[in-house]
Amino acid sequence: MYESIIIGAGPAGMSAAIYLARKKMNICLITNDFGGQAAKSSEIENYLGFKKISGAELTQKFQEQIGVLNIDTKTTAVKLVSKKENIFVVKTAGGLLEAKTIIIASGKTPRSLNIAGEKELIGKGISYCATCDGPLFRDKVVAVIGGGNSALDAALELEKYAVKVYILNLNADFLGDEIRQDRVKKSLKIEVLSDVQTTGVYGEGVLGGLKYKNLKTGEEKEIKIDGMFVEIGWVPATDFVKDLVELNNLKEIKIDRENQTTCAGIFAAGDVTDIRDKQIIIAAGEGAKAALAAWRYLLTKKI
Amino acid sequence: MYESIIIGAGPAGMSAAIYLARKKMNICLITNDFGGQAAKSSEIENYLGFKKISGAELTQKFQEQIGVLNIDTKTTAVKLVSKKENIFVVKTAGGLLEAKTIIIASGKTPRSLNIAGEKELIGKGISYCATCDGPLFRDKVVAVIGGGNSALDAALELEKYAVKVYILNLNADFLGDEIRQDRVKKSLKIEVLSDVQTTGVYGEGVLGGLKYKNLKTGEEKEIKIDGMFVEIGWVPATDFVKDLVELNNLKEIKIDRENQTTCAGIFAAGDVTDIRDKQIIIAAGEGAKAALAAWRYLLTKKI
Repeated sequence: MYESIIIGAGPAGMSAAIYLARKKMNICLITNDFGGQAAKSSEIENYLGFKKISGAELTQKFQEQIGVLNIDTKTTAVKLVSKKENIFVVKTAGGLLEAKTIIIASGKTPRSLNIAGEKELIGKGISYCATCDGPLFRDKVVAVIGGGNSALDAALELEKYAVKVYILNLNADFLGDEIRQDRVKKSLKIEVLSDVQTTGVYGEGVLGGLKYKNLKTGEEKEIKIDGMFVEIGWVPATDFVKDLVELNNLKEIKIDRENQTTCAGIFAAGDVTDIRDKQIIIAAGEGAKAALAAWRYLLTKKI
Repeated sequence: MYESIIIGAGPAGMSAAIYLARKKMNICLITNDFGGQAAKSSEIENYLGFKKISGAELTQKFQEQIGVLNIDTKTTAVKLVSKKENIFVVKTAGGLLEAKTIIIASGKTPRSLNIAGEKELIGKGISYCATCDGPLFRDKVVAVIGGGNSALDAALELEKYAVKVYILNLNADFLGDEIRQDRVKKSLKIEVLSDVQTTGVYGEGVLGGLKYKNLKTGEEKEIKIDGMFVEIGWVPATDFVKDLVELNNLKEIKIDRENQTTCAGIFAAGDVTDIRDKQIIIAAGEGAKAALAAWRYLLTKKI
């Protein structure tokens, strides 16, 4: 039986693994891939310590670091986490594993538009994070897809860099709050297209533009853009644990200030949690916090 | 007037600066030195992204990264932060500065023993963080100075690496909790010396040993050690803001989950706050969180 099983090997899971391995805890890291969302970022300039680095390179550095710690790593999918008296049973595609504590760092995936060309142009003009990639679009034309606060925030952030920002909203009104809406209205750079559905994107190797349909008139149009930010939500990977820990309305795991979930012995960190900002450096810090909390939990409990 | 003034340039302050500068906010970073406690670490192996790096080198990388962002930096001491209607006035040794928001990342300094030889041997055998430096003392003899939970935790952590761990407790009993005390008692590696005062350390370039006095018998003794961990508390740098924000009993700034202090518009991050674990990667994540919270605050308020 492990002292702790870490589920997921994005920045949160890898940071947690480093902290627990250095505490000489008997741990297992279960993942399907390394790096999580971070690995998919084209250029990262806001992770303290690296002026500019690609997501792939940064992930490589993370992996090298956990590599020297000889951590028991299993490349498989987690199906279910259940509780058996004082311990936890993790059902994976490769069999059952037991542990005294669990750290969930399974992350989230952006909700995609599911339109033609989208998948191919991710990281080549299509981004799911304005805070991460906004500065790459200095003096460019960009579009934000969405109608909530995230879309408004993204647009207000992007107008500082871009020459022109379109917002394509599926509805007539925004769901975001008034002050943000006011700022968007006042902006000379932001143009709002309401009641429109984004139907496709195109570009040879890099994004060149998008197609949309006006849902009121049925008219179809194209706009030339260099960047597109999809802000229509995220899907946290919490299905395998949803009966054991409390989730919020976004299906994120609720945690307290010390990364404890509503189930004693299960901790969570990073994008899968209800921590507001989903950022690599934040996930790395949260992973360390969750690891130290799990360690203290074992130090003071008799399991 | 600045949109935000960041006080302190340890990992938390520098990470906050990166996030706000990339949001194109008009900010000022005030500090007396760069790197904070991190800069004083001899070897860092638990900051995600770097297998092994010295505190000085890591600080250098942080500084290079904020260097490219052309941040207005003032090298001076902050005397007082006060509120004037909706804005904040920061009194520094070099004059007054005004801002709409404040991010406090002024850190903390370890309480030292104030004994002969201590200052000279910091980072050369004397450490204030077992989680950071414990693994450097594999198969060595170490001593922990203190009598609370931090001292017990440090000893329990160190016994996994060291061959022998002394705890020197000024009092007859420990303040730490029962389960920790039990584990310490059961350990074959840990030896507790009670009612003793550490009076000095010695060593040529590196720590060689310590001297202590038995407070009951008056007897003075020496023990040879390779490492000494001082766990007698920390002093957060919060004097300049203590009338504006609520502090806990350790004089740390109380923050909520989004790094908001009890004074609207003042955010805090890192070791200066009541976040439990004081670690570089955690401070870096918290700095980013505080920056994004300050940014959202300005986005939704009319100041």
